[in-house]
Parts: sequence; C-alpha cells; structure tokens
Amino acid sequence: MFWLNGEILEGPAAPFDLTDRGLLLGDGLFDTSLVLGGTIFRGKAHLDRLFEGLARIGIEADHDAIERAAADLSQRGEKGVLRISVTRGPGPRGLRPAKPQLPTILASLAPLVETLFFAPLSLSLTAIRRNETSPIARLKSVNYLDAVLAAGEAATKGFDEALFLNCAGKVCCAAAGNVFAVFGRDIVTPPVGDGILPGILRGLILAELGGREASLSLPDIGAADALFVTNSVRLVAPVTRIGDRTMDSAKSGVVAGLQQKVWQAIRAECAIDLSFSAGGLRPNERA
Amino acid sequence: MFWLNGEILEGPAAPFDLTDRGLLLGDGLFDTSLVLGGTIFRGKAHLDRLFEGLARIGIEADHDAIERAAADLSQRGEKGVLRISVTRGPGPRGLRPAKPQLPTILASLAPLVETLFFAPLSLSLTAIRRNETSPIARLKSVNYLDAVLAAGEAATKGFDEALFLNCAGKVCCAAAGNVFAVFGRDIVTPPVGDGILPGILRGLILAELGGREASLSLPDIGAADALFVTNSVRLVAPVTRIGDRTMDSAKSGVVAGLQQKVWQAIRAECAIDLSFSAGGLRPNERA
Repeated sequence: MFWLNGEILEGPAAPFDLTDRGLLLGDGLFDTSLVLGGTIFRGKAHLDRLFEGLARIGIEADHDAIERAAADLSQRGEKGVLRISVTRGPGPRGLRPAKPQLPTILASLAPLVETLFFAPLSLSLTAIRRNETSPIARLKSVNYLDAVLAAGEAATKGFDEALFLNCAGKVCCAAAGNVFAVFGRDIVTPPVGDGILPGILRGLILAELGGREASLSLPDIGAADALFVTNSVRLVAPVTRIGDRTMDSAKSGVVAGLQQKVWQAIRAECAIDLSFSAGGLRPNERA
Repeated sequence: MFWLNGEILEGPAAPFDLTDRGLLLGDGLFDTSLVLGGTIFRGKAHLDRLFEGLARIGIEADHDAIERAAADLSQRGEKGVLRISVTRGPGPRGLRPAKPQLPTILASLAPLVETLFFAPLSLSLTAIRRNETSPIARLKSVNYLDAVLAAGEAATKGFDEALFLNCAGKVCCAAAGNVFAVFGRDIVTPPVGDGILPGILRGLILAELGGREASLSLPDIGAADALFVTNSVRLVAPVTRIGDRTMDSAKSGVVAGLQQKVWQAIRAECAIDLSFSAGGLRPNERA
C-alpha cells in the first residue's frame, strides 16, 4: 500500500515528476517504523526525528500531511513496515532548489517479516567508512548507496550485515541499524557525533533501558561480552559473528533481557497480545 | 524534454514505480553532458564512464537503451544539457536488490545556460569532507545531498560554489566540478584516489592539454597563480575568490589558453561555428 502526496494507492505505479530532487540528487529523508495493531511503535519519536531532519536540511514539508500519511497507512494496514520519504520535490536542473519548494511526500506499508524480530545476525567489516563530517551521517537521508554496496559485499561473503567504522576509525553502525556492545552489565553505543543515525530503538535503550553513549574502537568491541544491532524491523538482533570471530551474544542474559523489555514496550504501546519466538509472532501464551 | 525507459515525453510527469531504488535509496548513477549541434561533446567518454560506474556497483542496465536515450534527446534537442540517470529500478523493501534487476533509465535535456560557459566563480570551503574511502566519491551517483547542502551554504554566504577537502584534509573538488591549480605553466588537479569524480573535461585537460594529477593541500592552492573549476556546463571556470582571498585566475594566460583550446575542441567535435563571450554564444566572427 502506498501514499503519494495525499492519495492512497494500492500499487506502486503512480504519476511522478521526473525532476524530483529525491530521485535525481538524493535530496530527501526517510523514516522506517514498525506498525503493529494499527499503531506505529514510537510513532511520535519517528516523526519528530523526521521533522528535525527536514528542518536541518531546509526541506519545507507540510508536517500535517506527513502525519496524515503515517496515520492513513498504519490504520488501514494494521501491521507492517511503514516507510515515509520526503524529498525537496521537483526542481530545475542543478543543485539549487526551486523556490517555493513543493516537497514530495511518499509513504508505503510493506509486509512485516516477523522472523526478523530479534533474529541473530553476522557482521562483516566494510572498508567504506562512514563520513562523520557530513550532516547526512546523522540523518536518515535517501543517500544510501554506501549502505547498499557494503551490505551487498557482506552478503556476497556470507554475512547478514556490514559494520561501518567512521573516517577516524571509530566503530559506527551497521548498514541498517545501530550497534551496541555489552561489557558485563554495561550497555554502550557510539555517540551521534561519531557519525551515526540516532535510531529510535537506540533512543529507547539509552533513555529507558540503561544504555549509555561512548565511542568504541574495534578492539573495544572485540573485547565485548556481547554485541547487538538495533533497528525498527530487527528490533534487538544479537551478533553471532563478526568477521572470523564468533560471538556468544545470542546467549547473553543482558541481550535477552533487553529483547524482553523492548517486546514488552511494543506490546504495551501497540496494545497487542502476542509473544515472539524464533518462528515469529504467536498469540501470547500468558493471555 | 524527457526520456523514460524508451519513451520520449514532453513534460516531466510520467508513470513511475514508487519502489524505485534510485528514489528510495540513492541506488543509481547519472551523467551530465553538453549537447551542441545535436552532438554530445565527448559523448563516448561520458557513456563509457557511466557504463564503467554501473558495472562497478552492479547495476545491470541495457547499454543500448542508454545510448538510445542519449541519441534521441541530443538529436531532437539540438542543444542543451543532457542528463542520463540509471537506477537499479524497482525492488522490495530493504537494501537487497530485486533479482532480476529492472533498471530505470531516465534522461532529460534541459535548456543550455550559455552564460555559464567559462564564467568566473567564487568558492567557499565547506566543513563537509568528501569521503575518499567510499566508491561513490569516484562515481557520479545520485547521492548528492552533501553537495546540495554545501552549495546551499556557499550560496547563503554569497559564494557560487563550495570547495571540498577529503577526510585526510586534501583538496578534492567543488560541489559540481573538478578543481585545478595553476603554478606557472604547471596545471595540477587531484588524483581520483583522493575521492574525486573523474570529470570528462578534467580528462580532456589531463590527456590532451597538458594537465597532470597530484594531491593538493589548502596551502598549495593558496600559493597557486590561478585556480579553475571544470564541468560540462561551466567548461573552464576561473576562480576569482576563495573564502576571503581574491584570486586573479580570470586574468591568467594559462587559464585563458585552456578556455580557448576547450572551446576549439567543442566547436570541432560538435561542428558548430560559434564564438563565446561573457554574454554567451554568438556567430563566430571569423566565419
């Protein structure tokens, strides 16, 4: 299901302006969130981050329309992965934007792949560094080709995801997710200044579940008791392998505890009564 | 005039697949070239670079169709700025491409702004670094948001263009063009490995007009006799100011000589009989 500038569409084909700067220049941001029970988990945090990002890069989009897209798709779709993209809209040739801007708001609700929830994954270090000098390292922009290339290379080598360092050699993030390291009871993730997106799950763990920010080196994460990756579709994914090295993250009590707490938060906020297991969601046994 | 997957369109609105990975992930490349007299200047070099880039990132596009787009628009339009964009095409949610790929080929011919030819410009140093660790630093990908932001910031400060350093602090390029420094008769531009696009005008100056590659520092370019920026729409643009410092590049005999030679190459290849002046093109006085 799709939503384009106010219209709900069943299929992906729609009249589109081929001078759209999102398409031609990557001049746009997006957001990906989890919809369950017709509710976007941490919907306000997702929209706030998107609005802040749009303000940061000067895209003058209609917040009400973006909220309408989110509400229309989440309520109709009941469950799925919601993606909202906002571009600076059509423009003349060249880098300078049109005045006034007519931003494009595009959203979709894709099927949920419940088996991804909490599923362990393997990481392969990419030689592509994350550029912490760029504002877009901290924004969910549509400039995702580095991530596409790194993830593709990781898949070719038999890994699930790529691990990025920044240009200063510090650990950053996965191609599509934040990275956390566990040392004893200490749960650590790199600060935004190191060139990472402030993920919504990451924010929940920092604000409510005892995580803290600190820069991490490769030796640091090599010495960690567990590693995990967070995003809105994998939730909390233990890292079982990083390059040649296997890790016991899937057996970590700290990681399992976070998974339980995140799931409880989702169940509560989305008012659903489901349990998760490796096989996906099922009716809550305690219900 | 537009061209989308084989069809010529007079206007920019067209049925488009909203799952296109160029639009959603920046998963695509483009090329911008100059059309005069129905001929794309250095057309083969432009297409070869595009094909090599597509191969580098694994986009399996139909070269014949791309050549057809280039030929259709250049021959019908007679003159203008040709842009060809090739994306990996539609795909499911997430970073992994669809198999098989169905790349999108999109082209446009925009009006020529002849007053841009050889026009002097000012440069403002941006704090955003060019990421030389990324393959896309050397490709004309649609991931242009850094350039959009840097150029916008430069414009706000009253400059025409932004100057990028790379993450190692070396001089790279403008937001939309290569940078050359002139020392006496020595014409120097940074090597591709420093994180720059191998521009077609740049290639012409290196291969045929006596330029050479060498890394440049900010002090190096501060000590240069002249600086200029090259791209396919500005051609050879002398830099009159870089930050607070004014430069005499527009009075440089070396730069003027290159401008003449580039214009001669264009006239010969495109078989046009026009002179250029600050006011734009006019019938060649010697004709």
